[in-house]
Amino acid sequence: MKPPPPGLRVRLPAFVCVAQVAVVASYAAFVTYDEHADARFQTNATVAADNALYADYPAFAHIQVMIFLGFGCLLAFFRLYGFGGMVFNFLTAAFTIQWAVLAQGYFRFSRGGVIRLGVINLVNAEFACAAVLISCGAVLGRTGPLQLLVLALLEVPVLACTEWAVLEHLRIHDAGGSILVHLFACYFGLGVSFALYRPGLNDGHPKATAGYRADILSAMGTLFLWVFWPSFNAALALKGDDQHRAVLHTFLGLSGSTLAAFALSAALNRDGKISMVDVQNATLAGGVAVGASVDMMISPAAAYALGVAGCAVCMLGFRYLTPFLARRCRIQDQCGIHNLHGLAGLVSCAAGICGILMADEETYGPSLYETFAHMAPPEGDPRLRELRVLVPGLKPGLGRSAREQALYQVAAVVAVVGVAAVGGVLTGFVLKLPQLAAPPDELCFDDRLFFEVPPDYDSAVPLADVTPEDSAADEHLVM
Amino acid sequence: MKPPPPGLRVRLPAFVCVAQVAVVASYAAFVTYDEHADARFQTNATVAADNALYADYPAFAHIQVMIFLGFGCLLAFFRLYGFGGMVFNFLTAAFTIQWAVLAQGYFRFSRGGVIRLGVINLVNAEFACAAVLISCGAVLGRTGPLQLLVLALLEVPVLACTEWAVLEHLRIHDAGGSILVHLFACYFGLGVSFALYRPGLNDGHPKATAGYRADILSAMGTLFLWVFWPSFNAALALKGDDQHRAVLHTFLGLSGSTLAAFALSAALNRDGKISMVDVQNATLAGGVAVGASVDMMISPAAAYALGVAGCAVCMLGFRYLTPFLARRCRIQDQCGIHNLHGLAGLVSCAAGICGILMADEETYGPSLYETFAHMAPPEGDPRLRELRVLVPGLKPGLGRSAREQALYQVAAVVAVVGVAAVGGVLTGFVLKLPQLAAPPDELCFDDRLFFEVPPDYDSAVPLADVTPEDSAADEHLVM
Amino acid sequence: MKPPPPGLRVRLPAFVCVAQVAVVASYAAFVTYDEHADARFQTNATVAADNALYADYPAFAHIQVMIFLGFGCLLAFFRLYGFGGMVFNFLTAAFTIQWAVLAQGYFRFSRGGVIRLGVINLVNAEFACAAVLISCGAVLGRTGPLQLLVLALLEVPVLACTEWAVLEHLRIHDAGGSILVHLFACYFGLGVSFALYRPGLNDGHPKATAGYRADILSAMGTLFLWVFWPSFNAALALKGDDQHRAVLHTFLGLSGSTLAAFALSAALNRDGKISMVDVQNATLAGGVAVGASVDMMISPAAAYALGVAGCAVCMLGFRYLTPFLARRCRIQDQCGIHNLHGLAGLVSCAAGICGILMADEETYGPSLYETFAHMAPPEGDPRLRELRVLVPGLKPGLGRSAREQALYQVAAVVAVVGVAAVGGVLTGFVLKLPQLAAPPDELCFDDRLFFEVPPDYDSAVPLADVTPEDSAADEHLVM
Repeated sequence: MKPPPPGLRVRLPAFVCVAQVAVVASYAAFVTYDEHADARFQTNATVAADNALYADYPAFAHIQVMIFLGFGCLLAFFRLYGFGGMVFNFLTAAFTIQWAVLAQGYFRFSRGGVIRLGVINLVNAEFACAAVLISCGAVLGRTGPLQLLVLALLEVPVLACTEWAVLEHLRIHDAGGSILVHLFACYFGLGVSFALYRPGLNDGHPKATAGYRADILSAMGTLFLWVFWPSFNAALALKGDDQHRAVLHTFLGLSGSTLAAFALSAALNRDGKISMVDVQNATLAGGVAVGASVDMMISPAAAYALGVAGCAVCMLGFRYLTPFLARRCRIQDQCGIHNLHGLAGLVSCAAGICGILMADEETYGPSLYETFAHMAPPEGDPRLRELRVLVPGLKPGLGRSAREQALYQVAAVVAVVGVAAVGGVLTGFVLKLPQLAAPPDELCFDDRLFFEVPPDYDSAVPLADVTPEDSAADEHLVM
Repeated sequence: MKPPPPGLRVRLPAFVCVAQVAVVASYAAFVTYDEHADARFQTNATVAADNALYADYPAFAHIQVMIFLGFGCLLAFFRLYGFGGMVFNFLTAAFTIQWAVLAQGYFRFSRGGVIRLGVINLVNAEFACAAVLISCGAVLGRTGPLQLLVLALLEVPVLACTEWAVLEHLRIHDAGGSILVHLFACYFGLGVSFALYRPGLNDGHPKATAGYRADILSAMGTLFLWVFWPSFNAALALKGDDQHRAVLHTFLGLSGSTLAAFALSAALNRDGKISMVDVQNATLAGGVAVGASVDMMISPAAAYALGVAGCAVCMLGFRYLTPFLARRCRIQDQCGIHNLHGLAGLVSCAAGICGILMADEETYGPSLYETFAHMAPPEGDPRLRELRVLVPGLKPGLGRSAREQALYQVAAVVAVVGVAAVGGVLTGFVLKLPQLAAPPDELCFDDRLFFEVPPDYDSAVPLADVTPEDSAADEHLVM
Repeated sequence: MKPPPPGLRVRLPAFVCVAQVAVVASYAAFVTYDEHADARFQTNATVAADNALYADYPAFAHIQVMIFLGFGCLLAFFRLYGFGGMVFNFLTAAFTIQWAVLAQGYFRFSRGGVIRLGVINLVNAEFACAAVLISCGAVLGRTGPLQLLVLALLEVPVLACTEWAVLEHLRIHDAGGSILVHLFACYFGLGVSFALYRPGLNDGHPKATAGYRADILSAMGTLFLWVFWPSFNAALALKGDDQHRAVLHTFLGLSGSTLAAFALSAALNRDGKISMVDVQNATLAGGVAVGASVDMMISPAAAYALGVAGCAVCMLGFRYLTPFLARRCRIQDQCGIHNLHGLAGLVSCAAGICGILMADEETYGPSLYETFAHMAPPEGDPRLRELRVLVPGLKPGLGRSAREQALYQVAAVVAVVGVAAVGGVLTGFVLKLPQLAAPPDELCFDDRLFFEVPPDYDSAVPLADVTPEDSAADEHLVM
């Protein structure tokens, strides 16, 4: 065996040291407390129970579970790469959130050059973190920790800038993050994977197999994501009935995709057997597919049907598109993120546009202009004054028609996919720098490269006994 | 080895397809949003923070964890049936909740033929789901996914109808679901198991053994249930002090049963060793045992003692009753649900009746008539007007005495056990239909039948080396 | 193999039986409901949503997850001691909380000889439980369940009495429990370990090795602790902005320590490889290090830097101090609690004192006198009346200057460390009583002594093949 790539011992600490000095300096220079966290704003009229903490913290905690436990377990499905799957996710996520607070703060949340930190900033940073972790899924096991950190370092500002352009300027509707989490993350990740293409892995890798206990752990990760996904989709919706609908729709969508995933898994397998890859991934497609319309009055039945549709495209993608992308387009998609996040994300965006086109005052009442801020009359419009009688405190909008808004949504999808793909490819080329200690082909999917491993690592099946042919887990290795 | 039963490839997708079309059609026809989720009801007087979502969602999320992660891990204790234990639970639960929303909606929550969906409906559906999953525990590893789905299909309407009769007509008190979750589920499950009796499994099955890592995972499932059980028992109690007591009592009951379970496990083992089966099950008996009286003023000491008592009957049931039922009554109870849910449930019902008999205005103050709605004076009674001075908005009750109510409770227990047992036996006979693809005896407790398995499945111990005699895990195979 | 120590079959049940009778009797005699859980206090002015349950339950539930799932998984890292690590933690925690309710109630929360039980008491008891579990970490695998229960039995009253002295009399500031959880627990545990010194284990133990799947499970435990630590540190802070800052600081501190832990782990390893021991422990140092200043206006950057500093001392302790303590001071620290809780706790205390010295009205506004109750003017001081105009309901304080308070904090640290160490040593000598069934040297770290184990226990690697020399997991065995 060749020695491991030299220098993780120096390079990882060096990168972290520089990063931490920069983070401390930036936080010291630019970050202070927001008014709900600052003792000076606690006047004698302040009621402690009204602190924004109590409205935002439950969603924050739930999404923390999704990111650290959900993704962490889900990515630990390789038999010999359980440490890497779980703890590089931990490392990357911890770095991404602290960095996203700064990047999103710079682009979106600063006032007077100062970022006012509250739990709500952490929730927004968690959305960026979810995007980074999804992107990492495309190159799981083929990248070292330093590469993952640099990936996060580069993806976060691109994402934050895109969010700023799309949310603040195009003013699109994307409560569940279909465009700015799922689509962005997917095409960024595929771009990275394209740049990191390894022809040597194209015929399967002997270590890229799932393990029995590892698959069960991975399914637990799916369950963590499944259970708390309603909190994710509702976190950034408007408080009140909008969040209530978001919870209902997400739950229904996930229910629909779960049943469909089991059924399609058996139907598409020649022996009628269920594949754990499908259980681990396609069951979640409903959460993605309802994302863009999650706070709209689309009806419970439509949310359920969306979940089924999202699952169907996801399953078909796993069976037919992923192998095609690997063979023909040099895009190796280790976790199949294109199916779960890309294809289901496109379904979601289409549904969101339909939801916008069908929104009317009859269905929504006057709160139409809150849920769809773009439809509210602009400042100065006399209609705004009328509406404010019905909806006190209504913010002025853009006075766009539904059709106009639909065009903006389409434009945003196209722009986000383009920016993400280009950004991903460029990032991927940066990740090829030899200083970033990419694992050599034969030590991909192998914890021994980066970790001290206990003696029972690899005891279960001598590796020589495992041939890719006899391995159902092959499907994890989508080539 | 015989080929697997033909047709899961066609039958599971066919069933799911029909089910999903029916679900979408039914939701489209009958389900709309409740007022807290409907944008039209958001008037200018609506305060978003008052949305029922914020009161109901925490309990919903906690019970989701219990159902999907708690039960999922707990049922994965077989060494070679970890996929089946965890993910058939996932499939069954996802199907049950969507179906229970309809069934409970039809029987209990529809107004004008319309089911108004809110998170509270999902919480109620989760209770029905818990019942179905408990029932499935009796036949774990001996049933295929199609059988489990049909079981849920049949159990849910029987349960919903029973709930309607018992809660709306008999008007019984059952905050923690002792009667309508634990007893119903237990006797339904035993009925199913009776009908699915397999004499061939009566002398032990070589694959029905626990595994070391599997047992640890299963204990994690227990811990998920243990930690969130207070949320389950409190979810449907009255808001305020009733829920507060429910949390305290459940915690105390579980604490009592946990200590007792360890002690009795050592005491009943000839070597003084602790059995993981007991740790995984009997520690939870306290949560069941306090269920029926969980919101009453029974005193903390009584809640603790109830936990100990529930654990004791559960442990004795595991040691003596379960083998007896298997040998003499043709009831094979794979997970010992009769001990945890049946026996501890009966303790709970007895305690609930005592709590009702001892309830008086001295202990409860005027809120007696809120907690015990049956004791409130009926509409038209002048006493109702007096009480409404003390308790504004008090709903009219039935004017029953405590003794009358106790008789209703007894009647409900008897009726529920009877209905559940008969329903279970009938369901069990339906499950024997050859179209439902029951696993053959030799492929019970074996993931290879329904799943693609990775190559390290079964690597730990060649199966031939395991004889039931040398296996402590035998106790999982309660025959 | 020698037979197991005789009598767990009798002694564990006997201890539990006596304990449960005592608990029931004590609860019956001294414990009643607090006003938020008592039906009689529900008057017609009571709004159910104002019940303290809703403010306290989320923290309670999150800390439950930390204690039962977080610690439970974290301590299951030994390959052959997974049952013991996870379920003795379960047993000890369940016992400790019920006992701490009584002990803390006696010393701190009783009014008129009566303990009024609410969820807030359970939260306080969970803090005591965390301390006991940390102490147990020092002797993990070398103590039987009866010893652990007796350890809890003795540690809890010493801790409760210390809390009473330090919080009610010295009136120190310790929102995150740095002094009363981490330092107390650490030095108590080291004291116990000193008394239980086993020279026979000083050259390594063949079974004291981590396992591959076990290490992954242990990392999950770390993630549970990591995710919910903000709830722990915020639980006992003042409601409102104080809790908001506690959440932000804990998250930032943990983020800082996580990055630093990965970097230092690679830097301190001769091959530049990451050790899972560091990932499992040092990533959490930030949560400890911000504890004492967690609710102060220390700035986000300082919280982050504190996390990095806490991690650095923790890592250096693991590498250099723990082996020294084991070899020279006869203190074997199985989980390295001195590094994570002792050293990082001292960093935290120092930061807390700095925070106190720098607190002024300019930074905090008038709420200074709420956060730092010791600075509020005493009853009768005319300044108190002035301040009450700004902060209605301000409680009278002690009128201490910041310097005085800093001295009290130092005195508290010294006193707590001293009391804990002496209490720990004395407790350790009690634990040596032969009746408490300590495991013999050769059966330490071995589940077979106390559990029925399934047949695949120990199948992965025949024990003879594992020599401590070739085991990276050696570091778990810090000698």
